[in-house]
Amino acid sequence: MIVVMRSDATENDITRVSERIKELGFKPHLSRGIERTVIGAIGREFPELQGMLEVLHGVEDVFPILKPYKLASRDFQPANTAITVGEVTLGSGQLVVIAGPCAVETEQQVLETARAVKAAGASILRGGAYKPSTSPYHFRGLGKEALEFLAQARAETGLPFITEVLAPGDVDLISRYTDILQVGARNMQNFVLLEEVGRTRIPVMLKRGMSATIEEWLLSAEYILSQGNREVMLCERGIRTFEKYTRNTMDVSAIPIIKKLSHLPVIADPSHGTGKWYLVTPMALAAVAAGADGLMIEVHPRPDHALKDGAQSLTFDNFEQLMSQVTDVAASVGRRLVTRPVAKLASQIA
Amino acid sequence: MIVVMRSDATENDITRVSERIKELGFKPHLSRGIERTVIGAIGREFPELQGMLEVLHGVEDVFPILKPYKLASRDFQPANTAITVGEVTLGSGQLVVIAGPCAVETEQQVLETARAVKAAGASILRGGAYKPSTSPYHFRGLGKEALEFLAQARAETGLPFITEVLAPGDVDLISRYTDILQVGARNMQNFVLLEEVGRTRIPVMLKRGMSATIEEWLLSAEYILSQGNREVMLCERGIRTFEKYTRNTMDVSAIPIIKKLSHLPVIADPSHGTGKWYLVTPMALAAVAAGADGLMIEVHPRPDHALKDGAQSLTFDNFEQLMSQVTDVAASVGRRLVTRPVAKLASQIA
Amino acid sequence: MIVVMRSDATENDITRVSERIKELGFKPHLSRGIERTVIGAIGREFPELQGMLEVLHGVEDVFPILKPYKLASRDFQPANTAITVGEVTLGSGQLVVIAGPCAVETEQQVLETARAVKAAGASILRGGAYKPSTSPYHFRGLGKEALEFLAQARAETGLPFITEVLAPGDVDLISRYTDILQVGARNMQNFVLLEEVGRTRIPVMLKRGMSATIEEWLLSAEYILSQGNREVMLCERGIRTFEKYTRNTMDVSAIPIIKKLSHLPVIADPSHGTGKWYLVTPMALAAVAAGADGLMIEVHPRPDHALKDGAQSLTFDNFEQLMSQVTDVAASVGRRLVTRPVAKLASQIA
Amino acid sequence: MIVVMRSDATENDITRVSERIKELGFKPHLSRGIERTVIGAIGREFPELQGMLEVLHGVEDVFPILKPYKLASRDFQPANTAITVGEVTLGSGQLVVIAGPCAVETEQQVLETARAVKAAGASILRGGAYKPSTSPYHFRGLGKEALEFLAQARAETGLPFITEVLAPGDVDLISRYTDILQVGARNMQNFVLLEEVGRTRIPVMLKRGMSATIEEWLLSAEYILSQGNREVMLCERGIRTFEKYTRNTMDVSAIPIIKKLSHLPVIADPSHGTGKWYLVTPMALAAVAAGADGLMIEVHPRPDHALKDGAQSLTFDNFEQLMSQVTDVAASVGRRLVTRPVAKLASQIA
Repeated sequence: MIVVMRSDATENDITRVSERIKELGFKPHLSRGIERTVIGAIGREFPELQGMLEVLHGVEDVFPILKPYKLASRDFQPANTAITVGEVTLGSGQLVVIAGPCAVETEQQVLETARAVKAAGASILRGGAYKPSTSPYHFRGLGKEALEFLAQARAETGLPFITEVLAPGDVDLISRYTDILQVGARNMQNFVLLEEVGRTRIPVMLKRGMSATIEEWLLSAEYILSQGNREVMLCERGIRTFEKYTRNTMDVSAIPIIKKLSHLPVIADPSHGTGKWYLVTPMALAAVAAGADGLMIEVHPRPDHALKDGAQSLTFDNFEQLMSQVTDVAASVGRRLVTRPVAKLASQIA
Repeated sequence: MIVVMRSDATENDITRVSERIKELGFKPHLSRGIERTVIGAIGREFPELQGMLEVLHGVEDVFPILKPYKLASRDFQPANTAITVGEVTLGSGQLVVIAGPCAVETEQQVLETARAVKAAGASILRGGAYKPSTSPYHFRGLGKEALEFLAQARAETGLPFITEVLAPGDVDLISRYTDILQVGARNMQNFVLLEEVGRTRIPVMLKRGMSATIEEWLLSAEYILSQGNREVMLCERGIRTFEKYTRNTMDVSAIPIIKKLSHLPVIADPSHGTGKWYLVTPMALAAVAAGADGLMIEVHPRPDHALKDGAQSLTFDNFEQLMSQVTDVAASVGRRLVTRPVAKLASQIA
Repeated sequence: MIVVMRSDATENDITRVSERIKELGFKPHLSRGIERTVIGAIGREFPELQGMLEVLHGVEDVFPILKPYKLASRDFQPANTAITVGEVTLGSGQLVVIAGPCAVETEQQVLETARAVKAAGASILRGGAYKPSTSPYHFRGLGKEALEFLAQARAETGLPFITEVLAPGDVDLISRYTDILQVGARNMQNFVLLEEVGRTRIPVMLKRGMSATIEEWLLSAEYILSQGNREVMLCERGIRTFEKYTRNTMDVSAIPIIKKLSHLPVIADPSHGTGKWYLVTPMALAAVAAGADGLMIEVHPRPDHALKDGAQSLTFDNFEQLMSQVTDVAASVGRRLVTRPVAKLASQIA
Repeated sequence: MIVVMRSDATENDITRVSERIKELGFKPHLSRGIERTVIGAIGREFPELQGMLEVLHGVEDVFPILKPYKLASRDFQPANTAITVGEVTLGSGQLVVIAGPCAVETEQQVLETARAVKAAGASILRGGAYKPSTSPYHFRGLGKEALEFLAQARAETGLPFITEVLAPGDVDLISRYTDILQVGARNMQNFVLLEEVGRTRIPVMLKRGMSATIEEWLLSAEYILSQGNREVMLCERGIRTFEKYTRNTMDVSAIPIIKKLSHLPVIADPSHGTGKWYLVTPMALAAVAAGADGLMIEVHPRPDHALKDGAQSLTFDNFEQLMSQVTDVAASVGRRLVTRPVAKLASQIA
């Protein structure tokens, strides 16, 4: 910690801060500048320290020197974490596409979509069984029945799937079905849930909270990692800003920043990141160009009949076009899609 | 819903939107302007409707006409909800002050603080037993032991208490002790937890999420209300902005806005709202002047030794001064503190 | 400046940073911690220094120690700046109310409003002659004719007035009429305009930019002060957030923060701060309770016919009620309105 | 306009709103729903209308139907605006790269940089002569001397240049030198300056304000266009959010949104957009993938000696690498760089 003293701090103030630093087990290190005295607290920082020093008399500001997360940091683990799910490996240089409906509605809808996204080159299926909703009167998901439909789609197509878990009490049940547990944006700081998924040995995708800083996001990943589950991937899904045209503002820069600060894979979700289907493809391309390890895309057989998020869902045709463009941009930055798209198949099925 | 068609929408587009509106059980109502055609969908709106119409060909924009919450709205219940806790009633015109440490640390700390805040005029005690923390390495609260200490302080001082619940699985245990269940800012959209506290018949204080709109906040209250628990109070605790000087930006305007839109009581928390102890008193006064039904203030015997949030905690002396000023401002807007401060007692105890 | 080195910085990196610090005229001061080395640069900081050090090899972070503003800071001038305009003094402990229409529309409208706000206790008149507008197709003000109307109203009522200046080229003309020059939120960082008003000796009210930090706001005040004009007052008028219910989110905490960091008077503008007339009174009371030196309130004879900002303008009756409540809250925090309201007169005039 | 009446609005309220709509020259159109009556105001909307209707008794909300900008909209001009500067055409499908130092410091620095960026494939030179600065004590640019240096660099390399204009009074002088006038983020709503550059016939690059919505940005473009200057390009340079890691959050989604709403070319500035040199290349690639017509990149011979923005400036080598990667990504989305990079030349010069 670095303690900056006020310009009117007395010698007495400086002495008391130094004493308190010693009392807390640190070595004080004084540096007298022209207008301010600065005191370093040398030792292994702990999180409560900053608040304890800030309130001392004569103190103007206290800066931590160390990043508050450890297991999630590239300092701790320089090599990328690679997470294998089915036949693909996230974080390995491959580009992985996850696609499917926002919410599972019917068996038919899931199966049809699974076939179409597989044909277009996706390698993981998504589908919501338990849906968060801002309103208690919205559709909340089919629950266990939806898990069964997803499992059927996996059995038929071979695609592993990801689905969201909303509550600590659901982790056990959902873990028996899913290949990846998703923690949603609204639960990024649901610390009890983070620890619960941390105790499983199933890969976890942690979405960024809608007003979370990157540091807080990595601290939430740290919660999962610190329980022993090292297979954590991060998903940028847009942050809240003053802009009213889009549902969220997708922070593409989070992708290279995470790559610099952490070893964990990063996925981009341009569907939630924008809220408008016609922005999904350009933002998917941007994310790939910026270095994303994967994409998560909402696809629905008939977006105008979707129970959730129709406005941001792609039709099968639009998804097929996205995949074709993504393949080209990925190649231009030295990445390749794991699964080759099966040309033209998707639209025939649809 | 109001559907605004694009300027280049064809007659065919307009017909198909009208047909779809009928198919969904609404009556379309056309209004042809000079540059745009607008179609009203008359009928009882449901939340998924907007997305279903937005994706139709030729549609530019869709506006909902009704507010998405009902039980929380003043339209539904014009009279204020009044919630009685111990000897005080929130939402009745009285001004209620809740005070105590951020986190319960020791029996002695809780008792000493309970006595001091009571003497200064507070009528409810606060204290965290289960603490959310951005970092897994921070202090997380004493759990059940802390509940015991709070119960002891209640037995001795007569002050009811409020404490936070972090997980659906803890609601039962905590409900056996506490007088008010607090749902924290990070859990404002933890919908499973909201429903769980909604199933109790204990008053709930719902803090505003750090980037929640007022509409989303009221929708979260709606979750609790719709489970049958009608004793919900809302707590403004600051929102996240670009400003770096304060921890949060306390949105004082939320107080009169909630009073206009809803019948639920509003509490202000200037401790979290600012993050700096020297801003707590001016912001407490502002909140009272703007119409808050109550205040929640962090008080600690020795803020420089607090394990959590020392920088925003008041000493006993500072709290006593706050109470004296609050009493005057409350009187100037026709409100009165329920409990008279016991003059000078607080500082003698401290 | 404090330079924090990366954990993998080499001795060579540390030496080169130290050398560069010396080359730039500072004294390096090393502090070797357990995981990081920190280097202080002791000497009189200049603003470009931070960027010059940030790019050196092995550097993780650079923190400035000093505040970047000087003349605006309370360190530089501990006593409050008091600015006398007509018969009132801003920053002296008096509470000063500025009121009038957003835009000057007609001679009659200005005169009528001036009489009404004076009768209700306002001591300065406001009125826009040159109006900024987000759209080129909006009403842009009457210009010089409006200045004449304001001067007439001053001659008749004795109220000094404030009006906005949009361009450096208008400063001369407007200075010949006005008692206070207003720099609007959109021009807070129009540095050429700031210097131009800084060269006059007319008091300046500097509004906070809609996404300005408090530090940037004080730096903009510094521009004016550094040209020799020491009569600068600051006006909080709301910042932009994600909230859609209000036009802006009025940051009441800016009032006590400015009081702590600076000696300049602070005015609150709850009309722009909220954008809704029914929120103006509660937010005016909040601002007074939090320590504002003054209020600026939009008042219009017929808000539903106002060419600008009718939705946030008070009628004469509503303004009279606001003044009566403001008087009470001001008294409760030991402040008094300079001009006594003339009871009941306003509504008779209206 | 669409006027939504309150649920408790009386027949009298509805009649009065309808009468007022007629009085203002519009045709009212009633639509009675189950819980609300909605009144359309049919006619040519003008901007003040919304405020005039909002304040009427019984009104809950007023929505405008039309976009407030016209000349800038794709509705008005479906074909892309193409702007030719020197040998390149912005908005034509070519990808144009603008590069150079943040601020012009010396003749040598400009010439050296101009040669290097040309060799690497840039086709327009940038360089600040008049610099905005948050602090009055920062470097503010060399002014006219810098314009001379830029003109020399143009004479030698053939690169046209862009430079910023800060004040209406400088437009004439700078117009005699520059090929493109830049209006900076802080001046996006300096309406007097917008009109002044609108009266020239020199292309204008309008940067997005740091908290401007896309609608406000297009309205600022409308100011320029409405003065007869149709050569306006827009530059996304990052918006302000709560994130502290980067200087700004570059809103990549603004690129496809502008492409949808407007016919004007869009440039991305990842240097200001991120504030950190190591994020510039990934964000440049993202912008190209998302459809930007051009890039503006800060390049400096020795970033650690730059007087402005060294932390976000690329070295010649880094810029050359960026150009090589940009060429590949551009090709993958069917775009090509106008000027072929001269392989290896840049690093030889540097």
